[in-house]
Amino acid sequence: MPATSADHARSLTKDTRLCISLAARPSNHGTRFHNWLYNELDLDFVYKAMTTTDIAAAIGGVRALGIRGCSVSMPFKEAVIPLVDEMDASATAIDSVNTIVNDDGRLTAYNTDYLAIASLLASRAVDPASSVLVRGSGGMAKAVVAAFADAGFTDVTILARNTDAGFALASRYGFAHRVSADAADSADARADVLVNVTPIGMEGSSMQGADADALSFDRAVIDAATVVFDVVAMPVRTPLVAAGQAAGKTVVTGGEVIALQAAAQFELYTGTRPTPEQVDAAEAYAAAH
Amino acid sequence: MPATSADHARSLTKDTRLCISLAARPSNHGTRFHNWLYNELDLDFVYKAMTTTDIAAAIGGVRALGIRGCSVSMPFKEAVIPLVDEMDASATAIDSVNTIVNDDGRLTAYNTDYLAIASLLASRAVDPASSVLVRGSGGMAKAVVAAFADAGFTDVTILARNTDAGFALASRYGFAHRVSADAADSADARADVLVNVTPIGMEGSSMQGADADALSFDRAVIDAATVVFDVVAMPVRTPLVAAGQAAGKTVVTGGEVIALQAAAQFELYTGTRPTPEQVDAAEAYAAAH
Repeated sequence: MPATSADHARSLTKDTRLCISLAARPSNHGTRFHNWLYNELDLDFVYKAMTTTDIAAAIGGVRALGIRGCSVSMPFKEAVIPLVDEMDASATAIDSVNTIVNDDGRLTAYNTDYLAIASLLASRAVDPASSVLVRGSGGMAKAVVAAFADAGFTDVTILARNTDAGFALASRYGFAHRVSADAADSADARADVLVNVTPIGMEGSSMQGADADALSFDRAVIDAATVVFDVVAMPVRTPLVAAGQAAGKTVVTGGEVIALQAAAQFELYTGTRPTPEQVDAAEAYAAAH
Repeated sequence: MPATSADHARSLTKDTRLCISLAARPSNHGTRFHNWLYNELDLDFVYKAMTTTDIAAAIGGVRALGIRGCSVSMPFKEAVIPLVDEMDASATAIDSVNTIVNDDGRLTAYNTDYLAIASLLASRAVDPASSVLVRGSGGMAKAVVAAFADAGFTDVTILARNTDAGFALASRYGFAHRVSADAADSADARADVLVNVTPIGMEGSSMQGADADALSFDRAVIDAATVVFDVVAMPVRTPLVAAGQAAGKTVVTGGEVIALQAAAQFELYTGTRPTPEQVDAAEAYAAAH
């Protein structure tokens, strides 16, 4: 390996480790993020986004070709479960995989979204005795709710438009469930910790009824809380985050989740943990194109 | 893609095409050769040598992961035959594959060694009425003999240490066969065209009885010939090539075979044919490390 990136592609050798991603519609984000850090940290790795129409053969190929790591996005996060050799607790917690690590042909599956949320709850020292309102019941909401449950939280209520999914998620942990399409539906709710895991407040959201200016919780609900947590990361400063910051609440952003899960995934593949500054720089580089 | 190679690895995107090689013991040659040309020709490709212990899953992975090209070396050249969707005539000619091209999940197998030899016979205008002596009966000898047969040559004799392989190869085309371990064994032979496809004259050869200074044909045999062709490429100037050049014969070298087969493979993967000068420069770069 040269010390600089000037001749990187030419310097690829038989020993360079390959990591890939599998998604129905690959973006350039991961490819740019990981390759930027490989250069920055002088690691002999290369990363490339891919797609497939045959997930079983693709994962078989990851194993047989010695591909070191495989990031998994929709719609493959559950389909890969029977294809790996071992499920880490982070993946079994939510029956969903976003990271596969190949150790000499043995595939272990992780969920670094779960790891990132668990890590944020610990680092912000959120008290497990707190009451929690989680808005949303999709894949990321499952990671959030599992992380709260595993951290010892017991007073959790799930607000969901989707009755079946909300009920199923709440039932899994013995939590409460309430049908709620938006902030107005739950203006009477109160909790110490508010978590938005819906597209409300997301730029360019196509969710029916949602828009980028909308608050995912009612003002009175926010005023009564001590912690606000928005998993939406585009923009990082959602209306909920802005309202929480303005009111002096403890705020956790979707940007932090993304950065932590990416750092965790990067470390699982390479054994090297990038610094938060390096992750931020790589995210900025990846987002700029 | 940037115009220079300075930022190549960072510039990898989801659309970058991946080509790989599969060999029991990968070398760095192909990785350096192809990546050098990708940079030189500003092609959005990346190449990486790999190995596998499960050739079926590996080729399934090539298909499912959309890997554009896969170079195949020992011991996989025959094993991949039932795993591809189509065999090009160059591969069926010798029941051996060294190049697989993936067109949207459909795998076509080629043998570019055969294509290179056929191309050299045509470009040097070797007369099919010529008598031919081929020394060797291994995989490359099969490509040589098939190319001669398919070019219309009928007076071909195979000199082989290995009685079974020599007989089998000769029988396939109705050619003659003679047991011969070295030049001294066949000092009485005469032919217009001499082809060495054994390690005799190869640097560092570990073949029993062979050494780098040895001539693969007797002096008198060389004197009587008009064309000498040495498939050994390390060094390009073998004792046979040197003797042929000194005597003013038409000479074809193993370096030409390697360059042509590599150019053919590169073109099958990328659709772009490198110039002979570019191939030479890439070979020099690949060989320098």
